[in-house]
Order: sequence, then C-alpha cells, then structure tokens
Amino acid sequence: MTHRISRFREILAQRRRKIGLPPGTLLPPERPPAEPVTVHLIDYDAEHLKEREIALEEIETILNYYKDRPTVTWIDVTGLHDIRLTEQLGKLLSIHPLTLEDITSTSQRPKLEEGDAYLYIVCHMLTFDKRNCTVEAEQVSLILGQGFVLTFQERPGDVFDPVRERLRQQIGRIRQRDASYLAYALLDVIVDHYFVVLEAISERAEQLEAEVLEQADQQVQHGLAALRRELIGMRRAVWPLREVFAELQRLENPLIAPETRPFLRDTYDHIVQVIEIVESLRELLAGLTDVYLSQLNHRMNEIMKVLTLVGTIFIPLTFIVGIYGMNFDYMPELHWRYGYPAVMLLMLVLALGMLYAFRRRGWI
Amino acid sequence: MTHRISRFREILAQRRRKIGLPPGTLLPPERPPAEPVTVHLIDYDAEHLKEREIALEEIETILNYYKDRPTVTWIDVTGLHDIRLTEQLGKLLSIHPLTLEDITSTSQRPKLEEGDAYLYIVCHMLTFDKRNCTVEAEQVSLILGQGFVLTFQERPGDVFDPVRERLRQQIGRIRQRDASYLAYALLDVIVDHYFVVLEAISERAEQLEAEVLEQADQQVQHGLAALRRELIGMRRAVWPLREVFAELQRLENPLIAPETRPFLRDTYDHIVQVIEIVESLRELLAGLTDVYLSQLNHRMNEIMKVLTLVGTIFIPLTFIVGIYGMNFDYMPELHWRYGYPAVMLLMLVLALGMLYAFRRRGWI
Amino acid sequence: MTHRISRFREILAQRRRKIGLPPGTLLPPERPPAEPVTVHLIDYDAEHLKEREIALEEIETILNYYKDRPTVTWIDVTGLHDIRLTEQLGKLLSIHPLTLEDITSTSQRPKLEEGDAYLYIVCHMLTFDKRNCTVEAEQVSLILGQGFVLTFQERPGDVFDPVRERLRQQIGRIRQRDASYLAYALLDVIVDHYFVVLEAISERAEQLEAEVLEQADQQVQHGLAALRRELIGMRRAVWPLREVFAELQRLENPLIAPETRPFLRDTYDHIVQVIEIVESLRELLAGLTDVYLSQLNHRMNEIMKVLTLVGTIFIPLTFIVGIYGMNFDYMPELHWRYGYPAVMLLMLVLALGMLYAFRRRGWI
Amino acid sequence: MTHRISRFREILAQRRRKIGLPPGTLLPPERPPAEPVTVHLIDYDAEHLKEREIALEEIETILNYYKDRPTVTWIDVTGLHDIRLTEQLGKLLSIHPLTLEDITSTSQRPKLEEGDAYLYIVCHMLTFDKRNCTVEAEQVSLILGQGFVLTFQERPGDVFDPVRERLRQQIGRIRQRDASYLAYALLDVIVDHYFVVLEAISERAEQLEAEVLEQADQQVQHGLAALRRELIGMRRAVWPLREVFAELQRLENPLIAPETRPFLRDTYDHIVQVIEIVESLRELLAGLTDVYLSQLNHRMNEIMKVLTLVGTIFIPLTFIVGIYGMNFDYMPELHWRYGYPAVMLLMLVLALGMLYAFRRRGWI
Amino acid sequence: MTHRISRFREILAQRRRKIGLPPGTLLPPERPPAEPVTVHLIDYDAEHLKEREIALEEIETILNYYKDRPTVTWIDVTGLHDIRLTEQLGKLLSIHPLTLEDITSTSQRPKLEEGDAYLYIVCHMLTFDKRNCTVEAEQVSLILGQGFVLTFQERPGDVFDPVRERLRQQIGRIRQRDASYLAYALLDVIVDHYFVVLEAISERAEQLEAEVLEQADQQVQHGLAALRRELIGMRRAVWPLREVFAELQRLENPLIAPETRPFLRDTYDHIVQVIEIVESLRELLAGLTDVYLSQLNHRMNEIMKVLTLVGTIFIPLTFIVGIYGMNFDYMPELHWRYGYPAVMLLMLVLALGMLYAFRRRGWI
Repeated sequence: MTHRISRFREILAQRRRKIGLPPGTLLPPERPPAEPVTVHLIDYDAEHLKEREIALEEIETILNYYKDRPTVTWIDVTGLHDIRLTEQLGKLLSIHPLTLEDITSTSQRPKLEEGDAYLYIVCHMLTFDKRNCTVEAEQVSLILGQGFVLTFQERPGDVFDPVRERLRQQIGRIRQRDASYLAYALLDVIVDHYFVVLEAISERAEQLEAEVLEQADQQVQHGLAALRRELIGMRRAVWPLREVFAELQRLENPLIAPETRPFLRDTYDHIVQVIEIVESLRELLAGLTDVYLSQLNHRMNEIMKVLTLVGTIFIPLTFIVGIYGMNFDYMPELHWRYGYPAVMLLMLVLALGMLYAFRRRGWI
Repeated sequence: MTHRISRFREILAQRRRKIGLPPGTLLPPERPPAEPVTVHLIDYDAEHLKEREIALEEIETILNYYKDRPTVTWIDVTGLHDIRLTEQLGKLLSIHPLTLEDITSTSQRPKLEEGDAYLYIVCHMLTFDKRNCTVEAEQVSLILGQGFVLTFQERPGDVFDPVRERLRQQIGRIRQRDASYLAYALLDVIVDHYFVVLEAISERAEQLEAEVLEQADQQVQHGLAALRRELIGMRRAVWPLREVFAELQRLENPLIAPETRPFLRDTYDHIVQVIEIVESLRELLAGLTDVYLSQLNHRMNEIMKVLTLVGTIFIPLTFIVGIYGMNFDYMPELHWRYGYPAVMLLMLVLALGMLYAFRRRGWI
Repeated sequence: MTHRISRFREILAQRRRKIGLPPGTLLPPERPPAEPVTVHLIDYDAEHLKEREIALEEIETILNYYKDRPTVTWIDVTGLHDIRLTEQLGKLLSIHPLTLEDITSTSQRPKLEEGDAYLYIVCHMLTFDKRNCTVEAEQVSLILGQGFVLTFQERPGDVFDPVRERLRQQIGRIRQRDASYLAYALLDVIVDHYFVVLEAISERAEQLEAEVLEQADQQVQHGLAALRRELIGMRRAVWPLREVFAELQRLENPLIAPETRPFLRDTYDHIVQVIEIVESLRELLAGLTDVYLSQLNHRMNEIMKVLTLVGTIFIPLTFIVGIYGMNFDYMPELHWRYGYPAVMLLMLVLALGMLYAFRRRGWI
Repeated sequence: MTHRISRFREILAQRRRKIGLPPGTLLPPERPPAEPVTVHLIDYDAEHLKEREIALEEIETILNYYKDRPTVTWIDVTGLHDIRLTEQLGKLLSIHPLTLEDITSTSQRPKLEEGDAYLYIVCHMLTFDKRNCTVEAEQVSLILGQGFVLTFQERPGDVFDPVRERLRQQIGRIRQRDASYLAYALLDVIVDHYFVVLEAISERAEQLEAEVLEQADQQVQHGLAALRRELIGMRRAVWPLREVFAELQRLENPLIAPETRPFLRDTYDHIVQVIEIVESLRELLAGLTDVYLSQLNHRMNEIMKVLTLVGTIFIPLTFIVGIYGMNFDYMPELHWRYGYPAVMLLMLVLALGMLYAFRRRGWI
Repeated sequence: MTHRISRFREILAQRRRKIGLPPGTLLPPERPPAEPVTVHLIDYDAEHLKEREIALEEIETILNYYKDRPTVTWIDVTGLHDIRLTEQLGKLLSIHPLTLEDITSTSQRPKLEEGDAYLYIVCHMLTFDKRNCTVEAEQVSLILGQGFVLTFQERPGDVFDPVRERLRQQIGRIRQRDASYLAYALLDVIVDHYFVVLEAISERAEQLEAEVLEQADQQVQHGLAALRRELIGMRRAVWPLREVFAELQRLENPLIAPETRPFLRDTYDHIVQVIEIVESLRELLAGLTDVYLSQLNHRMNEIMKVLTLVGTIFIPLTFIVGIYGMNFDYMPELHWRYGYPAVMLLMLVLALGMLYAFRRRGWI
C-alpha cells in the first residue's frame, strides 16, 4: 500500500522471477515468514457450529467430509508460503491454476473473477502504522463456492474475529444465511476497517494542521506530503474495490443469494463513502500545504520587507554622514557652529519623511 | 457539510462503533441531544385535513387507522435518537432494517433506494451560519409509500412550514394531489433553501471582494479559502442529489404519479441551477484569490523596486564620499578651492543620470 | 451573463421570493421596467402577410381567429412583467403553468422541453457592452406549436428585424415554409448574433494584446482577467444551447417538419463553431496573461540584476576606501607619495575584473 | 489554422456579413483573389483516361455527357470566389444549397455530411510557413457521388498531383477501383501532408531545443510559445477529422465500396498517429519551456547568491573600518603601534571564517 | 519509445518517403542494418517438435509442406528490411498488403486488426538502456492464423527464448495447446519484460531519490525530468496494448481457442498492473521533483535570510559610526572622555536588541 519506490522494486522483483515459467506456476516467497501456515475451519448451520484447526495431512479427508453437506463451511488460511497446501486446496475445490497463482502473488489489484463454480475476490486489508504514519496493506483473497468460503490472509491477525464471534454467539441473522452472506460479512468487516484507518489518518491530519499554524518548518511539509502519498496509496486499494462491488451487484450468479444483494449494496455505499472521505482528506491536506506555503512566503516577505525598509532609510543617511566625513579643506558647513545638530536634524526629518511615505503607501 | 478534518473524525468514530455488529443494528448517538423526539401527523384529501402530535404509545393504533384509508398521510419525525420509535415505525410500515440504519446514520450521501413497496430518499437540508461563515447540514430522510410520506429530521426546524401552510390553507393544487406530489413539495422546499444558502454565501463573497481590493492581508486570504471549502462541501451535498432526481424521473415506479413528473423535472432544473451557481461562485472566488495574490506580489515588487533603486543610486555615491574621506597625505583634490562643490556636483549629475536611465527603461 | 457576484445575488433574491409558493406561481418583478409590454403579431402564408400590434383586450378574439387557420402565426411579446397577459396567452394556447413560470424567471439555463402540443426553448440573446467590456444577456423564450410561434423577449430590441424583413419582402424560402422553419430562422438569428459578440470580444482582445506588449501594468492584467470571465459567462450560455440543438435534431416530433432538419443541423454547426472560437479565445487570453506575467517577471529580474551587480561591485570598493579613512596613527600607506593613485588604480582593476567575470558568466 | 486573434476576427467578419440573409446564400469574398477559378476534369476507367480544363460555359454540356457513364469522373475546382460556377455545379449534381454555402465559407470545422445522393467531407490542407514558423490551412471540400468526385480547393497548389500521376501512369490499383477509392486516395494524400508539416515543426522544435540549452533569452520563450500555439491550432484541424474517418468506417452507405473500407481504416490509423505525435510534441515543448524557466531561475539564483555572499562578508567589515574612522579624541587603539595590522588581520580572519561557514553549509 | 524530438523526425521522414505511393507499397529502410534477415521455424504438436532455420529460396516449399498439417507452426522473422521475403510470406499466407506495410513501418501504435483469416497484433518490446537511462523500443508484429503464428522482430534478440525452451522441454501445457496459446505465450513474455524495464526504472528512481536528499543540483533535476519522459513514452506503448487485450477477450473469433481466454485475461491483468506502476512511478517522480524544488527554494531562502539579517543589523550600525566620522568642528561627543566606549556600548545594545526582536518573531 505504502506508496514508496522500494515497495515497487519488491513487487517487480517478484514478477521477474516468473519470466519464462508457464502460467499458473506457484513460487514460494524468497524470504518466507517465520510463522507457520495455519488452516482454521468453521462449519455451521442454524443449529450447529463446529470449529477446528486442521493440519496439512487431514485436509483431504476433512474437506471431502464437509464439502457435500448442506452446511456452510469456512476455511480460513493464514500465510501464503506453503505452496503444497495451496495446490492441494486448489485441487480439492477445483480452483483454476491462474487463480491459485493470483492468490499467492501479493501485489494484486482488487478484482472479481468468475470461475467455473466459484467467485474469486481479491482485496486489501489495511492498517495504519502509527509510528511511521504509513498505511500497511495485506492481501486478502476470498473464494466463494457452493456452500463454502475459502479465505487467504498473508499474516496472522484478528480482522475476522468479529465475524467469528457473531457466528459462535448467533448474533444477528448470520447463522440462518448461506455462504454468500458469510462472504459479504467478511468483506464488510474489511471495508469497516478502512474507516478505522481513515480515523487514524484524520487524527494525524489534525495534528499536522495544528503544527502548520504554530510553526511551519520543512518537517511539517514532509509530513503533509507523506500523508498525502498514503492517501493516494489508499485510493488505489479502494477505487477498484468499488468496481468489484458494483460488479457483484450486477452479477447474475446463483452463488449470490437474492437476500444477500441489499447487503452488498450497503457495503457498496460504505466504499463510496470511504472514497469520498479519502478525496476530502486529500483536498484538505492540499489546502493545508497551501496554507503552509502561504505562511512560509508571508514570513519570507516580512523579513525582506524589514531589510528593504531599514536599507532604504539608512543608505541615504549613511551617504550624508559620508559627505561630512570627507577631508576637503574648504567645506564651510564643517565650521558652522550648529552644523552638526543641523545635519542630525536634517537626517531625522529625512528618516521621518520616509517612514511617513512608507506608511501612507501601506508598507508598514 | 462543513469541510473540516474534525467533522470527518466524528463521522468515522460513529462508523467505528458499529464494526462487528450485524448490519441493520441501530445505535443511539453517543451524546443524544436534549430535545425529545416528536412525531407530527397530517392526514388530508381534497376535502378534509387532520393534524396532530402523536406519542410513542399511540403510534400503532393511529398508523393502522390511517394506513389503509385513501387519504394522504404525512408523518414527520423530528429527532433520530429514539431507537425504539424508529424500529416501531419501520415494522408498521414494512421498512427494511438497512434503510432504518441509514436513516439514523447522519452522514449519508444523498441517494435514492427502491424498497419493496416504498422509495427511500436521503438529502441534506443546508443552512448558513453567518457567524462562522460555515454551511451547516442536517440529514433529511424521506420515505414515500402507498398513500403516505414519512420524513425524518435531525433537529427541530421550520423548513417544512411553507408546505404545511399550503396544505392547511389549500394554496395551489397540493390538496388535490397524491403522496408523490407531497414528497415532491417537501424535496422542493429543501432545494429552494439551497438558494437561500447561496445568497448568504454570495453576500459574504461580495464582502470579501471589497476587502481584497481595499487591504489585502492574510485574513482575507483565509476567508477566501474557507468560503471555497464551504462551497466544495456544498457541492458534495448537491451533486448526488442531481443524480437522485435524474433517477426519480427515469423511474418506472407506480408510487410516482404521472402528473408529478413535470414537477420533478422542474426541481431537477433547480438543482442544476444550484450546481451552476456553486461552480460559478467557486470560479469567482478562485479569481479573487488570484487577484489577492497578484496584489500581494505587486506590492512586494513595488517595495523591492524602491530599495533597489535607492540602493543603486546611493551605493556608488557613498563610495565617492568614501574616497574623499580617505586620509592619504597626498590627495590634491582635497586642497582645491572648489573640490567640495565639484564633487557634490559630480554626484548630483551621477544621481540624475541614473534616474534618467531608470526612467528611460520604464523602471520608475 | 456577466459573471459577477452581484448578478448571482439578484438571481438568488428572485428565487428566494418564491419559496413556499406553489409551483407555477407567476410573480411580477420587484422593479418592473418602465416600458410597457407590447404584443406584435404576424400571420402569413405564401401569398398573404398580415402584421399588427395587439392590445391586451383583443388578444382572445384575435388569437381564436388566427389559431385554427392554416397560416403561420407569429406572436412576439416584448417585456415579461405583465403577468395577466402571460397567463392569458398560456390559457389560450394551452401552455403548462411550469412553462409559464420558466418564461418569466429570467435566469433560465438554455433548455428544450416537450410540452403536450408544443416545444418550449429558452436561450439567451447576447450583446457586447463596449463601454464596460461586458457581455449582456437577455432571456428569449420560444414556443413552437401547431401553426404558431410565440416568442418572449425581456427588453425591446431589433434582433428579430432581419427575419421580419425576410417575411415582408419574401426573401428566400421562408414564406413557403411552416412554423418550425420560422422557429429555426428566429433561433438562427440569435446564434448569428453570438458571432457579432465574439467579433467585439476579439477586437478587445487584440487591443489588450497590443497593450501587453507595450506597457504591462496591472490595468492590463485586470482587463485580461475580466475578458476571460466574460468568455466563461458566454460559454455558460452556449454549451447548453448546443445540447438543445442536438436534442432538436434527434427529436421525433411532428411539429418539426422534415425539411427544417438540415437547417437545424446547420445552426448546430454554427453553435459548435461559436464554442470553438470561445475556447480558442480563452486559450489565447490565457497565453496573453502568461506573456504579461513573463514580461513582469523579466522586468523585475532586470531591476534586481542591476542592483545586484552595482552592489557587488561597489560594496568591496567602499570597504577599501573605508580602510584608508581609518585614523590609525601608524598606517604607512597613507604617507606614500603615490598611495592615493595606487589605491584608485587597485579599485579600478578590481571593478574591471569583476565586470569581466560577470560578463564571462553571461550575467551582463 | 494559425491560432491568432486577428484570424478569428476575419472569420467573424465573414460570418457577420451573412446575418439576416436566408440560409444557403452564397456571398463572394470581400477581397477575391487575383487568380481565376479553374475547373479540371479527369474521367477514367481501367482502360481509358481523359483529362481537360473546362470553361464555365461548357460545364453543363460536359457534365451531362460524363455523368451517366460508368467511368469515374473527378472534377477539381480551384478557387471558391466564382459564385455562379459553384451554383451551376450544385444544380447539375443536385447538391443541397446549405452544402454549397459550407463549401464557400472558408472556416468550416472538418466534418462529414450525408446528402441525399452524396457524401460531403470538409477537411484542411496544411502547410508550414518556414519564414514565420506558422501552420497555414486551406479548406478542401470533397463531394463523393455516384461515379463522380468533386473537389474544391481555395488556392492553386500541387497537393493532388501524386494522385493524378498514379491515375495517368496506372500506378497501383487506383484505375481499377471506383469513385470511393479515388476519394480515399485524395483524403489520404492530404493526411500524408500532415506528416510533412509535423516534420517541419519537429525540425523547428529541435532548433529551439538547442537554443534553450545554449542561451535562454526571452526570444526562445516566445518561439516555444508560438510553436505550441501552432500545434494547438493543428490539433483543432486533426481531431474532428479523426471523427470523420471513424464515422466513414461505420457508415452503411452504398457510395463506399466494401473494398475501400480497409484503406479508410489505414488512413484512420494515420490520423491517430498524427494526433499522438502532435500531443507528444506539445508535451516535449512544454518540457522545454520548463527547462527554460528552470535555467532562468537558476541563473537568477546564482546572481542573487553572489550578491548575498559579497554583501554578507563586506557589510560587517565596512562597519569595522567605519569604527576606526571615527574622530573621537580618546580611542586608544588608534595610537597602538600595531593597531592597523591587527584590525586588518582581524578582518581577514572574520572574512575567512564566514567563507568557511558558508562553504560548510554548501552555499558556495 | 524514447520520447525525444529527434525520434519523431525519423518516423516522420520515413512517412514522407511514402507520399504519393499507392497504399501497401513496401519500402526498404534508408539505412538497412548490417545483420541479415533470418527466418526460424518451429513446428510441433504434443509428440513431435521440429526446428530449423530456413533460407529465402526454400520458404515456399517448406511453408506449403507445413501449412496444411494439423501441427502448430511458428515462423519467427528477425529483421524487416528484406522486402522480397516479407512479400513472399504475405502471398503464401494470404496477408493483406496493408498489413504487410504496417509490419515494415516501425512506428506503429500497438493495435489489433482482424484480417480475413488471421489476427494481426502489433506491440512493442521494451528494454532499458542503463547507460543513457532510456527505454528503447522494438516493434514486434504477430500474425495468428489457422495453425500458425508468424512473428516479426526488428533486431536479433533473445526475448522469445523462454518460450522456445518451454516448447523444446515440454514445460507446462504449451505443447498440448493450439496456435492461439502460442500467440498468448509470446505476447505474455513481452509483457513480462515490461516488469523488467520497470524494475530498472525504479532502481534509477531510487538512486535519484537518494541524490535529491543529499545534494540537490540541476543535474538531478534533469535526471528526474528525463526519467519522467521515459515513463510517458512507456505509457504510450502500454495503454493501447491494454485496449488490444481487452478487444482480444471480447473477440468472437474461432482462431482464439476458449481454453486460451483465461490466459489472455491474466495477461490483461498484468498490463493493468504495469500501467498502475507506471502511473505510480510518475507520481513519485513528480513528488521527488517537488521535494527538489522545495529544497532549492528552502536553501535560497536560508541564504537570503542571512543576508537580510546581517544587513539589517549592520546597516544602522555603520550609519552610527559614520556620524562620528564626520569632521564638524563642533561635535561635543567626540571630546568626551568616554564617548568612544559609550558609542560602542550603544551599538552593542542596538545589535542585541535587534537580535532579540528577530528571535522573538521566529526569524532566527
């Protein structure tokens, strides 16, 4: 997400490693993370709910058991670097190799793809790193099939916990609904987190606003520029997601239950609102930058004006005292009794006259 | 409406409180306003009109009585923080829980939604706060059903009074028409208030215009920037409303009587005019900012030019008087009878020559 | 038309007076103009032409006489402030109250509306006020019905005179054609006047161009900005008119004779050309503003450069003469026979050396 | 073409002369050119080709002879000021009066019109005037009818010569093809000339590029601005032509032979390429202007920096020597044996110290 | 690709040479490259693969042999300057003369054309020249026919090697698939190379980023401008390619096997990603330019501020010492015992006072 050159280099290096390989080839990451890949399964209907962690060896048995039952099965995979696991899930659930490749390539643009018997949705889970004031992104892939939802996250995290709670404690209608409602609920909680990120960003923006008005140094300018960059990056994550949800609403696919559609529209409205706030914050930050530059300019002008006025007043006076510092033999004024005070008075009058002229023109 | 960072933080905090809750959950505001929620009912046809305040307990009885009669029933709710009331109205009039949630979330974008047997319209009532020169917004929700109109306002106010008067006093055709005409009349009076806000804004703009031409200080610049921000905020309220009315005209919904359509088109034209004036005012304010900056720049240049010219004339002269202030033993000029006046004359000629050269180049 | 804040305030005040009134209410203007409202009627076919002024009382009789004859009847109303007259015409020719309201509200955007048995077109007649260099607009409404054309102008003027002449003197095909051709001819003559306005604007632009190159002062800058504002205002009148004519061509309405269509396309082409010239002139004026600013900047830089060079040369020299103006007892140079000329020579060499260095760097 | 205010005034004056005249009136130009109007006819099929100049009197006889033969007839008219000739051709070939008016109005936008039995295409032939560095435009009208092509040029020129040569010498397929192929060939050669104009423009741009890097004076800036204006003017000629060709490809008109369509697409591709190069050159010129301004700014900064540093070093030193130029009776330093060298040393140390400080901060 | 004026002149000169020639004429380049044109053939199905270089004379025999076999035949031509060879291939494979002309004109915009029995695709192979930091482009033409793929490259290179390897070593599915899959694989490897170019560009961008923060001189600014130009050039190559792939997906052409479509979509996604990265890098470089300019400005301001302060402090002091350097006979202060130290003290107080005032205003 963070909008930095180094980040693009990583994505591009990842891409380069695949040149010449046949499409659909899965490559483990160069530096796989330390955490092991975990698979968490929840299976439920209105009456029952079963929940368990499953190991790589059991997957085939367990999936085959749950696949054909009328319950909703949610398989949540955390970590993408276990290629074998991903391939096995793909085979068991008939997922196209290109989809599997997209799942493991962590720089996908949010998109919706219709597979033979499933829908594939990629989006980004965002978090705000308060220390560096950056928005961090994690790719989340969601596959909605007949009676099951399969999710992939890059790193362990608790983003889906509220949905798990609602499932376990039967809050709301979620246990009565089908898999498309579960998919909706999971995507909705991701979109809801965008509001949390925006709240952190607007908090940081308020802090910068205060700083701009107090002391406008280059640090503040860099802060403003950095935050605007983060918002641009965030926009990149949200704009395509809007199209994904617009497409989801239009889609004539039996996997999406008619009862789920109003909820998809609701999430669509939330995304539109996120985009509006992102745009508004960008405009506000642009406005702050203008204020900063105007302050800077104003201060510079103030300084210049003082020099200008001091210079304009004293340069002629210095010339006058220079005249009476000349060593000519015949300078009658030098010998007058009141020459000195007369010159001093002359200069005072001159200085006051100039001050008056400046004031009349509104320069001071 | 007001386009400030702190406002976004409020909206975002409100959103954050809902994360993880099932969709359609109604939450009372964190700080509910002091005023109680009131429900005002008007029921009319061409011959009769009945009007009364109703209490929470009576609602069910009264609504059931009026619902199925051929008259038009208008229920106007002021205040959104009585969750029970909203839920009961929703149940009695078969309104979808997501619509109810939208009604109570006071940061909706203007939109139109078709429910099963009703149309749901959100828009913003705007007022101009003359003290702070800000545009304040209040969310107004309108539900048009078969034979009834249900409106929700955030705060007590008299925006709908002209419509009530027309109903009571049988002014115009309103009493002969159906519920869609009432909905039109209510929306139209909201749009008409946009013109009032624009009038206040253009008054403030004229005042700033005068200030720019008189004395251009930073205060004026901030005023211009603030007013432009308000206009941007106002645009955000009006643009989507234009789409709402465009959609209303296209809609093939039996709830909208054919006789109402020309009036919807009329209001659409008004909205387009509001947008045009908003854009024109923004351009004019941008032009004023340019004038301000040009004034500022021009004044700075004038100041710099004076220093430059004073400096350019006196620096060489000061050098000359410096020469004759040197203490060399052998400086014949110092002993000449007319050395002093000669040098003075030389300097005068030099100064006049420079002034002439500057004038010829058009510098003074 | 003129794009000024005060103009918007007028429009908005006019709008405010209507709040709460039922739609279709006609209000007389606050300050009705002194001229009386006149109604001019021309009735013609290929052989005959009758022409007369009609008074308010006769209207009903006369209209009923001409309405059902196969001739073309053109009723030209000058002045909008006689509400009774407008209402009576509306009743006699079955015009919708909202259309009548639009006719009397003098700040309509150009538009086309299809009534039950007529077409309603609003557009702006433009004139260039050479004294203030502003574009003045007058709203012209045109109603095309079966066998008649009804036009409304705000103020008396001779814009339609060429058409009247063609009718009277049988120039061209106009007397052989139907009412839609008359409507075309009237609109075409309005569009032709746009070219006259543009000619005046481009004359003014040429004059400003000459001034920019001669002496670039703030006056010229304001003139450029004002002319650009007028062009923006003009664009606002012409752009929607383009859509009106595009719609007219597409319209499947029996009121428009097939023979008239090529002529509508011709006028459409003219409007497109007007828009192109408006845009070109705006670009040219923007270019002139750039030239102006570049001139200004260049002149400022020239001035600064001279100070810089004068300062840079004389400040060190003044330091040197300052040294020999010190009063130390033991300064051997002061007592040298050729100390004075030596120092003078030294300073000359220094000054020439600096001049040479500046020249080599291309600074002078 | 040339994008100058004076040119618009001409077009507008031409337009003004027509106000009030019936549509389709042909007016001779105010200052008709000296050259007579010539009509050149080529009639050919795969076996035969006849070529002759025809006089006004013969036109009727000759056209009637060739019109109904199965050969292709190309009538090329050079000069638009012989109104009688144009009208006679119009009558003989059944061309609509509005089309004839467009042919003689030399400021048409490129466009395509379908007549009853012909297609009418307007476009611009461009040439680059190397002396003034301007793009000159000439309006070319082309009418494609059943078995004939009629072309109108403003001034004599050799733009169509290559096509004539191909006809005479049977180069390529042109003699085997129908009239639509001839029309294509004529339009194609006009578009090909755009590349010649672009080559001249890019040559001029390269020359300006060299000048920018060598010596950046205002002359170069004006040259850049002028060339950009010409490119904008050229874009105005080419953009609408692109639409003309897009429409030509879509057109379901029997006048266009199916075999001609791929060639029209080829010309369309050329036009797109012309547009791309125009846009690229505009961007490059904008880039050069930025480089110019950056150079200018950089040089100004260099100059300012030198003054700043010279001033900052010498102003304090001059103060010091001023101190010892004071005439107080009791200034012990003045009487010290080594006062003078001590002060000189002090000042040297001060100056070096300041130079060192400046260098450390990277200022010199 | 490289976005330089001289490059456009070449393209335009090439175009000029064709004026007046019939369409479809092939011209050899003015300066044909030294390398001979080579033709490389690979013919394969799931079981067999044959590979050979073929000479001009054998082409007819060999092509006729392979053309009608059910295998996939890939003919790869390197070098475009052998007109005879291109024409013979065109005749043997029934390619339209205009397509052949496009193949040999090396400045085509990426495009897709449907021929009678083939698809013609032009795109650009890009490489990054690390020495000059420029993106070099080579036109690649690809013709997909029934059972064969024909490719044309300008210069020898190894871009297609990975595909050849996959064919030879049966990696992935390529040997089981038809010609459209081969075409996909070839286009995909070209698009993959865009990522390599972007990686090199982002490496260069990181280097410039470091330089901007360290020492911001004009060299860096030129580097930034040049890199942005290259990105603009690159965008020109990629944007139309996106449309090509969008069209390829929509195309109802039997030449494209249904199994190939998901892969085309995959490449389309890659192109979209390339565009996004190009845009992001452009924004980042624009941001860097802003940082550079802000640094420059900041440094300039710092310098000016120092002069201003030094000047403002010392100019009044110099005036004071000038006063006591005057030679009036009657200046009592000069004879005071403590006149000198008193003046020195006065000046010290004055200087400290000014410093204090400056500090309080935050100027130092």
